[in-house]
Amino acid sequence: MATFKVIGIAPSPYTQRVLVVLNEKGADYFLQEIDRMGNAQKKPEHLLLQPFGQIPVIQDGDFTLFESRAIVRYIADKYEGQGPSLYGKTLEERALVEQWLAVEVEEFDSPTGAAVFQLVFGPKYVGIPTDEAIVSSSLEKLAKVLDVYEAHLSKSKFLAGDFLSIADLVHLPLLFFLVTVGNRGEVVTSRKHVKAWYETMSSLPSWYKVLSLLSP
Amino acid sequence: MATFKVIGIAPSPYTQRVLVVLNEKGADYFLQEIDRMGNAQKKPEHLLLQPFGQIPVIQDGDFTLFESRAIVRYIADKYEGQGPSLYGKTLEERALVEQWLAVEVEEFDSPTGAAVFQLVFGPKYVGIPTDEAIVSSSLEKLAKVLDVYEAHLSKSKFLAGDFLSIADLVHLPLLFFLVTVGNRGEVVTSRKHVKAWYETMSSLPSWYKVLSLLSP
Ligand SMILES: N[C@@H](CCC(=O)N[C@@H](CS)C(=O)NCC(=O)O)C(=O)O
Ligand SMILES: N[C@@H](CCC(=O)N[C@@H](CS)C(=O)NCC(=O)O)C(=O)O
Repeated sequence: MATFKVIGIAPSPYTQRVLVVLNEKGADYFLQEIDRMGNAQKKPEHLLLQPFGQIPVIQDGDFTLFESRAIVRYIADKYEGQGPSLYGKTLEERALVEQWLAVEVEEFDSPTGAAVFQLVFGPKYVGIPTDEAIVSSSLEKLAKVLDVYEAHLSKSKFLAGDFLSIADLVHLPLLFFLVTVGNRGEVVTSRKHVKAWYETMSSLPSWYKVLSLLSP
Repeated sequence: MATFKVIGIAPSPYTQRVLVVLNEKGADYFLQEIDRMGNAQKKPEHLLLQPFGQIPVIQDGDFTLFESRAIVRYIADKYEGQGPSLYGKTLEERALVEQWLAVEVEEFDSPTGAAVFQLVFGPKYVGIPTDEAIVSSSLEKLAKVLDVYEAHLSKSKFLAGDFLSIADLVHLPLLFFLVTVGNRGEVVTSRKHVKAWYETMSSLPSWYKVLSLLSP
């Protein structure tokens, strides 16, 4: 049995980004699902692993790590010699991966997460109806961000260069929710290079393997 | 002359975190100040370097990089063999540095930045009076975050272990503004281990060197 344990849930975008990176690397792991509806992430046992009461957390042997963005970097480093290099090969490539990882958390995550919450998680899991005003203002902010991505991706196949990296993959889960369940595909399809980038990522076998965990 | 150029301004906390890390490493660099009041960061020449119109940006020879959190990682990697190791020595130490870098951007930055804007930058530079309600709600959020830091720092001298790292240093500029100009020292002094951590960092010669750039 794999000793690399992911504590999370299959429909969580922050769990999914960890799983897609593990799959790209062909790493062996298992997902231990927590009882999210029962608020298991706020129980004392879980707070010992993740003091902010969130998922995902990984346990690799006796090493525990939380924060999805730290976990994907750890996986890319640990499996550096296995599968595609998801962190670049030179100091400069790695720095550009970091630059776009920083853009993801600083610019992309908040408007996209807000729109996906309103369109998907609120109505489907929490019983809160969609607030269209929040959706519009979030998508307006996201549009400005994706205009920068569009200009950049017209010169470079992936964010950090001509290679797929963890900087690309961290964007995939929320973007996928927005486009599919959230039905806001135009955010992507209205931008030629963002569209090509998204289509490349969302047709990766590593991503299908993540989706296959979702019960219909 | 140093070929490592930092484009920014001395009173910017995001510029300061880059400078303190360069100073820790004893690296050679120069600061090229932009005309922030004249909105130089939104001019076309600057947007070619930083498409979101922000500072800092670095140019190391002909390599350009933006996003302060990517820049500090690049400096720690580039000068790995020079000065203290600010990124840990093992895969696991590095992962813990990443964990706390992620906590900084996800949990610490937003409430602290909001309080510092209200108490310092708004009134002093933008001519916007302090909104005490925003200060209180931000400090309330920050208190919860720092309670987690306090529990953690009771077991570990620095965030990622017993060594100073970039995960610690990225917290210093905003915390310093909050405690000094913002006059909210109790945020730190009411927590024994956070206080010791803050005092260690804020008395580093590398930090004095940053402060020496500020005109009185
Ligand atoms: N910064 C965290 C965010 C993770 C996060 O927001 N996880 C959600 C599930 S997708 C969660 O655990 N929410 C539970 C809660 O906040 O109570 C990370 O990247 O790991
Ligand atoms: N995510 C950026 C944030 C930098 C940032 O907010 N810089 C401020 C100065 S401290 C800025 O350039 N603001 C100008 C603006 O947004 O117009 C980074 O970490 O480099």
